[in-house]
Amino acid sequence: MDIATLVGAVAGLLMITVAIYIGGGAGAFLNVPSMLITVGGTVCATLVHFPLAEVLRIVSVVKRTFAVNIPPPQQVIRDMAEFARAARRDGVLALEDTLSRVDDDFLAKGLQLVIDGTESEQLREIMLIELNSVQRRNKMGSSILSFMGEAAPAFGMIGTLIGLVQMLRKLDDPSMIGAGMATALITTFYGALMANLFFIPLAGKLNTRAKEEDTVRQMMIEGLTGIQSGVNPGVLEDRLMSFLTPGTREVATKT
Amino acid sequence: MDIATLVGAVAGLLMITVAIYIGGGAGAFLNVPSMLITVGGTVCATLVHFPLAEVLRIVSVVKRTFAVNIPPPQQVIRDMAEFARAARRDGVLALEDTLSRVDDDFLAKGLQLVIDGTESEQLREIMLIELNSVQRRNKMGSSILSFMGEAAPAFGMIGTLIGLVQMLRKLDDPSMIGAGMATALITTFYGALMANLFFIPLAGKLNTRAKEEDTVRQMMIEGLTGIQSGVNPGVLEDRLMSFLTPGTREVATKT
Amino acid sequence: MDIATLVGAVAGLLMITVAIYIGGGAGAFLNVPSMLITVGGTVCATLVHFPLAEVLRIVSVVKRTFAVNIPPPQQVIRDMAEFARAARRDGVLALEDTLSRVDDDFLAKGLQLVIDGTESEQLREIMLIELNSVQRRNKMGSSILSFMGEAAPAFGMIGTLIGLVQMLRKLDDPSMIGAGMATALITTFYGALMANLFFIPLAGKLNTRAKEEDTVRQMMIEGLTGIQSGVNPGVLEDRLMSFLTPGTREVATKT
Amino acid sequence: MDIATLVGAVAGLLMITVAIYIGGGAGAFLNVPSMLITVGGTVCATLVHFPLAEVLRIVSVVKRTFAVNIPPPQQVIRDMAEFARAARRDGVLALEDTLSRVDDDFLAKGLQLVIDGTESEQLREIMLIELNSVQRRNKMGSSILSFMGEAAPAFGMIGTLIGLVQMLRKLDDPSMIGAGMATALITTFYGALMANLFFIPLAGKLNTRAKEEDTVRQMMIEGLTGIQSGVNPGVLEDRLMSFLTPGTREVATKT
Amino acid sequence: MDIATLVGAVAGLLMITVAIYIGGGAGAFLNVPSMLITVGGTVCATLVHFPLAEVLRIVSVVKRTFAVNIPPPQQVIRDMAEFARAARRDGVLALEDTLSRVDDDFLAKGLQLVIDGTESEQLREIMLIELNSVQRRNKMGSSILSFMGEAAPAFGMIGTLIGLVQMLRKLDDPSMIGAGMATALITTFYGALMANLFFIPLAGKLNTRAKEEDTVRQMMIEGLTGIQSGVNPGVLEDRLMSFLTPGTREVATKT
Repeated sequence: MDIATLVGAVAGLLMITVAIYIGGGAGAFLNVPSMLITVGGTVCATLVHFPLAEVLRIVSVVKRTFAVNIPPPQQVIRDMAEFARAARRDGVLALEDTLSRVDDDFLAKGLQLVIDGTESEQLREIMLIELNSVQRRNKMGSSILSFMGEAAPAFGMIGTLIGLVQMLRKLDDPSMIGAGMATALITTFYGALMANLFFIPLAGKLNTRAKEEDTVRQMMIEGLTGIQSGVNPGVLEDRLMSFLTPGTREVATKT
Repeated sequence: MDIATLVGAVAGLLMITVAIYIGGGAGAFLNVPSMLITVGGTVCATLVHFPLAEVLRIVSVVKRTFAVNIPPPQQVIRDMAEFARAARRDGVLALEDTLSRVDDDFLAKGLQLVIDGTESEQLREIMLIELNSVQRRNKMGSSILSFMGEAAPAFGMIGTLIGLVQMLRKLDDPSMIGAGMATALITTFYGALMANLFFIPLAGKLNTRAKEEDTVRQMMIEGLTGIQSGVNPGVLEDRLMSFLTPGTREVATKT
Repeated sequence: MDIATLVGAVAGLLMITVAIYIGGGAGAFLNVPSMLITVGGTVCATLVHFPLAEVLRIVSVVKRTFAVNIPPPQQVIRDMAEFARAARRDGVLALEDTLSRVDDDFLAKGLQLVIDGTESEQLREIMLIELNSVQRRNKMGSSILSFMGEAAPAFGMIGTLIGLVQMLRKLDDPSMIGAGMATALITTFYGALMANLFFIPLAGKLNTRAKEEDTVRQMMIEGLTGIQSGVNPGVLEDRLMSFLTPGTREVATKT
Repeated sequence: MDIATLVGAVAGLLMITVAIYIGGGAGAFLNVPSMLITVGGTVCATLVHFPLAEVLRIVSVVKRTFAVNIPPPQQVIRDMAEFARAARRDGVLALEDTLSRVDDDFLAKGLQLVIDGTESEQLREIMLIELNSVQRRNKMGSSILSFMGEAAPAFGMIGTLIGLVQMLRKLDDPSMIGAGMATALITTFYGALMANLFFIPLAGKLNTRAKEEDTVRQMMIEGLTGIQSGVNPGVLEDRLMSFLTPGTREVATKT
Repeated sequence: MDIATLVGAVAGLLMITVAIYIGGGAGAFLNVPSMLITVGGTVCATLVHFPLAEVLRIVSVVKRTFAVNIPPPQQVIRDMAEFARAARRDGVLALEDTLSRVDDDFLAKGLQLVIDGTESEQLREIMLIELNSVQRRNKMGSSILSFMGEAAPAFGMIGTLIGLVQMLRKLDDPSMIGAGMATALITTFYGALMANLFFIPLAGKLNTRAKEEDTVRQMMIEGLTGIQSGVNPGVLEDRLMSFLTPGTREVATKT
């Protein structure tokens, strides 16, 4: 669970809401047609821009990289060494017990392949295919969020233009000017808020997570092939350590 | 048929239209001179920017990559293997029957060359020339759409400036102020909508499609030269598989 | 003659003019002081930014690449082959007759050098110097136009700020407000129009032309040194063909 | 102490404050809800964008690179030569006295390792890990500040939109229009000031400092391993000199 | 003397001034507090962004590259050949007479080293250190000017926001609205003018000059080491010629 993402998003929304309540007229800030234009326009433009399958996957990609626990590198090293020790002592079939306690789908799939006795080269290739599609999904997800971060303010402005034109046609009723203009500005507000509190920062964090996940997944692949070919647990631990750059190695130790 | 492009564009337009109807005064949003300035200005600037031949081709390039079915890689592999089997069994002349059932112009041209007995190196060269001009057209199309995505809001703003100046000269008739300003804003609305719902996302999808098409076309060239030189269908299938990155290989299997 | 450039620029201006006339008050759009600020400011900033000699050359660079006919590659190949045949049959002195019919300065200079019996290596070096300075001029021209495309809207805004400040000082005469504001906006209109209809697209086309010219000039240099060293016309034709990428080769054939 | 950073920031704030006092109504510029939206929104978006640990470290990273004295390269060379001489004369244990006078944590840690008799290769590796994590922290710090420089004006605008909508709902009380609009604009003012006087320039200086620190730290590592392996002090000095590019070498001499 | 820079800057200012006088109310455009905010804010942000020493040097860097005569390459070649001839005829000591007539500091320093009999390798190294620090200064100068080109409009906008807020607090005195708003806009005007007429174009020209100076300085270094080691003047001239790209060689000949 990346607590910062959640705290940031929720606290941001809360703060804006409080600021709105303090100023009064909070009702004016909830406007369904305005939301329709901004959200709907952004989603439609995203559909025109990206392949359908990728757009449909975006919710799960975002959730997958923010809520799901990618195990920290240090724990992966510890787990791998433990698996290696168990496999050496009792054979790879002994990993079957461990399998049930593994939460991570990627690791579970790999362990299953080891237990099934898949040979080393094939095991690596299958896992790399899996990793590759994870990477592609992360990268595509970040591209989509970045694009939405550009599209949302644009459709916010389009909504405001629509509202302004409609308001200006009814200038003869002065009491409506203020309300009309206020409503017109709501879409720009929606667009700016969505882009700057959600889409742009989420795209940024997705990139950071993708880099972390990539390292962890490659460590898992290295570990699994090592276990499968019966490498000494201590040697395996050293080999996995070398995946960490000095900086992350230190961070890993501290965590 | 890329359904997302169509759905996105149509749903986007519809949503905007509905939002306009809900707000009332929909008539104000259809303004021929405003459309003239925004669309006309964008087209003129595009003519100044790009060679005439490329601009004329843009409609067909857009249509070609969005509506036309580029066969999915997996099907290309299957087809190629089938052609190879037919050619091995009954000779390349037997492909004549198949030819009539091939929709894809690129593939049809290649098959015809195989049937005509064009030798391997020349076949590859002719098809690469064809592919090269397809790639160039896709890339140029994407550049043109990107440029239009920048020009449209600019000419929208130019139209609004014209409208504002005209409105400001007639300030003595207050009843005209609102209507004048509303009309002035319409061009900015047109420019923003065209750029953000069509030009920019279409340029993005054109890039994605171009990458997909490139892979498929290269697989076809590899397949056709293989068929022409009598490669074993199984070997050919393996060779074509290697064109797919692990990720797309998996996707291809899923499709 | 690049007809698209001319048509785009003229049609764009015409369309804007028509739109202005339809709206009325066309007189307001011709304002000498406003033009002074926008055009003058842009030119002055360009002088500060670029070396004087390059700025002075810009008109001729623009004209040179848009109005002058760079011969199409296919014609260059044909001409070169013809020159080679003539030179082989009657000696290089026989090219003297041809020289008078050659419009292109670059080619004419090269032919003169061949007729004068300049030796192969020196001929190539002299022509490369010529080509290099053509390339540098094209690139610098494109940089200058791009910069002007950024400066023009900036000085348009500066002019509008001046106009607004002056208008705001005279708020006590309400009848002047509209007219003052209208005049103020004219400079922004000029800047946006100049940048988006002329400077930015012209810089783009200059780049396309520069690439085309580069290929044609290099073909000429290859051709001239070939003629000078008595290469077989057919061989020469093949050698020049290889300058074309497959795509342009096809285009060349189609033209 | 980087005096320019402090002077620039303080003088900038002072100048703005003076300008505000001259114009009057200074009270209007201190608005807690406005600050809440701009600062709070920026911080929340930063939390969504970057890992929590990095965001928490930002204050110390900024302070560390601006207030702490990274010793100038020339002094590092002098110190290292002196340490080398002391170590040669009285053995590495004699450095214990020096250690107490060393302010720089990085250098102190390295010296301690030398005194402890850590062997050359291990010493270098430990210090490189340390350096690597310093570099990563500096780079991440600069990324975070850059992002805040983009987020602050965006949340400023969001705050202004909120204020405008609230003001527009109460148009019937004309005496409130001015005050409402003034309050609305305060957030944009906060966002622009924070971004342009602090976040963007601080990110820039952090980059410059990071480059300087990197050179100095690498000189220290080279020096310490040299001392540990008993290199001649004169040779060491020359070796450290070569770390400086000619330009900085001159600057170092002048300092 | 780069006449274009001076003419562009002066003519630009003049043109703006004339345009202001024609429109009237020129007094409003000279506003000390507004200038304080825009210039002061920009300078303060620059101090936060760049090291103090570099910011202090900016005036001299700008002056040095715009007003000082970097000798044209062709003249450097001529001078160097002449020096080489004099040194060959009468020994390097004979250059002492020439030294007094050399304006360029860089060249003078080099000649002095030659006269002092500095050996070839050391001479080159000393001069390269000098050149390196010139390059670094030019590059840093261009970075600083570019940053100021971004900061000036930002602080212009900050000033306008301050002015607007102050004006809006005093809406009850309608006669002050216009004047207040006019004053508020002045800072944006200052920022835009400074950035677009000075900072951005000056950064551009600094880059061009830096490239020219680099070539000339490297020719001088090559020439001086040649003279010092008694190279034949003709050979030296050829060697220096090769520093020029074909394009500049032609330009050099034309100058």
